[in-house]
Amino acid sequence: MDQLYFDHAATTVVLEGARKAAIDAFEVYGNPSSVHSMGIAAKKIIDSARKTVASSLFCKPEEIIFTGGGSESNNQAILGMAKMRARRCKRVITTDSEHPSVGNPIDSLEESGFEIVRISTKGGRIDIEALERELSLGAAFVSVMLVNNETGAIYDIESVKRIIDKSGSGALLHCDAVQGFLKTDMRVISKYCDMASISAHKIGGMKGVGALYCKQSIIKNLAPFIRGGGQEGNLRSGTENVIGIAAFAEAVNEFPKYKEDIKRVSEYTRELLEKSECNFKLNLPEKRVDHILSLSIVGAKSEVVLNLLNGYGICISAGSACSARKGRSGTLEAFGLQRNEIDGTVRISFGVGNNEKDAEFLVEKLEEAAKRLVKR
Amino acid sequence: MDQLYFDHAATTVVLEGARKAAIDAFEVYGNPSSVHSMGIAAKKIIDSARKTVASSLFCKPEEIIFTGGGSESNNQAILGMAKMRARRCKRVITTDSEHPSVGNPIDSLEESGFEIVRISTKGGRIDIEALERELSLGAAFVSVMLVNNETGAIYDIESVKRIIDKSGSGALLHCDAVQGFLKTDMRVISKYCDMASISAHKIGGMKGVGALYCKQSIIKNLAPFIRGGGQEGNLRSGTENVIGIAAFAEAVNEFPKYKEDIKRVSEYTRELLEKSECNFKLNLPEKRVDHILSLSIVGAKSEVVLNLLNGYGICISAGSACSARKGRSGTLEAFGLQRNEIDGTVRISFGVGNNEKDAEFLVEKLEEAAKRLVKR
Repeated sequence: MDQLYFDHAATTVVLEGARKAAIDAFEVYGNPSSVHSMGIAAKKIIDSARKTVASSLFCKPEEIIFTGGGSESNNQAILGMAKMRARRCKRVITTDSEHPSVGNPIDSLEESGFEIVRISTKGGRIDIEALERELSLGAAFVSVMLVNNETGAIYDIESVKRIIDKSGSGALLHCDAVQGFLKTDMRVISKYCDMASISAHKIGGMKGVGALYCKQSIIKNLAPFIRGGGQEGNLRSGTENVIGIAAFAEAVNEFPKYKEDIKRVSEYTRELLEKSECNFKLNLPEKRVDHILSLSIVGAKSEVVLNLLNGYGICISAGSACSARKGRSGTLEAFGLQRNEIDGTVRISFGVGNNEKDAEFLVEKLEEAAKRLVKR
Repeated sequence: MDQLYFDHAATTVVLEGARKAAIDAFEVYGNPSSVHSMGIAAKKIIDSARKTVASSLFCKPEEIIFTGGGSESNNQAILGMAKMRARRCKRVITTDSEHPSVGNPIDSLEESGFEIVRISTKGGRIDIEALERELSLGAAFVSVMLVNNETGAIYDIESVKRIIDKSGSGALLHCDAVQGFLKTDMRVISKYCDMASISAHKIGGMKGVGALYCKQSIIKNLAPFIRGGGQEGNLRSGTENVIGIAAFAEAVNEFPKYKEDIKRVSEYTRELLEKSECNFKLNLPEKRVDHILSLSIVGAKSEVVLNLLNGYGICISAGSACSARKGRSGTLEAFGLQRNEIDGTVRISFGVGNNEKDAEFLVEKLEEAAKRLVKR
């Protein structure tokens, strides 16, 4: 059975150019730390990829640390900033709808004596007044995601930075940009953030590779996350994932080509859902990315909808993949949905390979699910 | 120019089967955490690979945590054991010749108040009497590598475990098995160790993937290294590197086929070097693996030898790749070499693709280097 994959926010297909770059890099099997020609060839791949990734974030190559993925980047950022600032201040401000790879390390800081403040993101908007109030009491750092992975809401990093500056708190700003990477204006990252996390596999690279942006002025104060051979500026030791990094850079180059297609199919799907007689509830934040649509089928259970659609070869998600095997989504609660809405919420996310015909089939099957599952 | 690659201990070529497994896995692009068919297909790859890797270590699949590489595994093990035992005991025993990804996290423990004892490994043998003496004073854990990456010495894990048990200290045992993985008897790992680190790219898998063996009886006490979506038994969150893990398992299956070839070429090279008139000093530990030969050209500088050989397309290493850009090797000093010997020491390491003809060319060029560089 053909798969109709509408779960690109969980992970997406490796793009053709990225795949080619990976396969080419199989031949360059030297260790980038080796000083002979095979090592130098491998190091060249890393150096060139670093430039590509840096330019996508409008930052300097030396501000990019390659990591084992977005979750690692987030952990490294959160623990790094906490260590950097623990003596001065043990107060952290974040939102109530971060990804678990930000939320959980922050929870672990709470267990070790930090005070954590979680700002509301109701309706997909950061409560700026609350942020201002809390920042006036001081903070070691603030961590806010760029794009919410369940609702697609774009959080206003520029305003967050403005409020931080106004507060005089000297708080650092970290941004989990994994879901927003290349999907919204990336200039905000190096313009406003001290650190930011990105991942390759959300934009057509391979799983197991990510990067951490770290502003040059603070990178020297960052403690190593993995100690050893001194790779990645001594911050993340371990033989570099040459193949994954080569593919990452190529995906960065290639992904933007598909943005218009993704937008078009997403808009088309939204229109079909809005016109439907099924009373779908679209959870649309005011500012949102094109590739994520959050939809509540009130009265249905999302896992039953998922199973039903899976039977037709359609892959969608309830909440994020990372919470797929967990309980009810705290993020959707933070967005302001009611319990019965959350229980029936699915995430449709668009990417390379989706087209209007498939979108029509998706909506048809969502309608079928709603008709079968919602008791009238 | 053809490359004659004799630096397989730094990293080695991706094996044909591993490459094929990787390329096949490009098609299985779902997120293993997703509950739809594409997610389930990806999870199957991980589950199957976990069984393969576990069987290579004679342990249970649930005792394998996939990581971002050997250095990450070592860091996770060292910091994990320290956290687990810090309240009971802040004393750690290791050797004086560990890889930096063990040595450096242990150094960082020293900075945070642990007492560190480094046992001599002179001649490639752990000083068992010293270990016994030190263990009688107690230890939180012991970390000893299986095979030294610069000399190829096999360290006697069985005796280490026997002394630990005899001491009644209750110390945990971690083994950095990265360089020994599939190159010596792997039964020692699950038989004697509580934790062990392995890496894919040293046996023909891809860079950026490794695993941590963690005995079932202590895995529940291990703190997460990366927090987030709860992957890898909640110990190492982050979307799994499906492609890298698929290739890892295939390399585990395929690598043993080449062991005899590697041994044969290595032995042949050793004989040529021993017969040579150049007075090469072979640093041969009593118990050693086949794939590493440490050779001192007394009076020459190893980096000059490397450069000269590189000019002929021959890739060898001075010490390990991880210390290639650093200073003099502490490991060779620990082995018992004099300064002038260390300065002229190169590491030849064998792997898939090496043959007798290439070995002859290598020895010829080493002789040329010795004749040109050693003043008489």
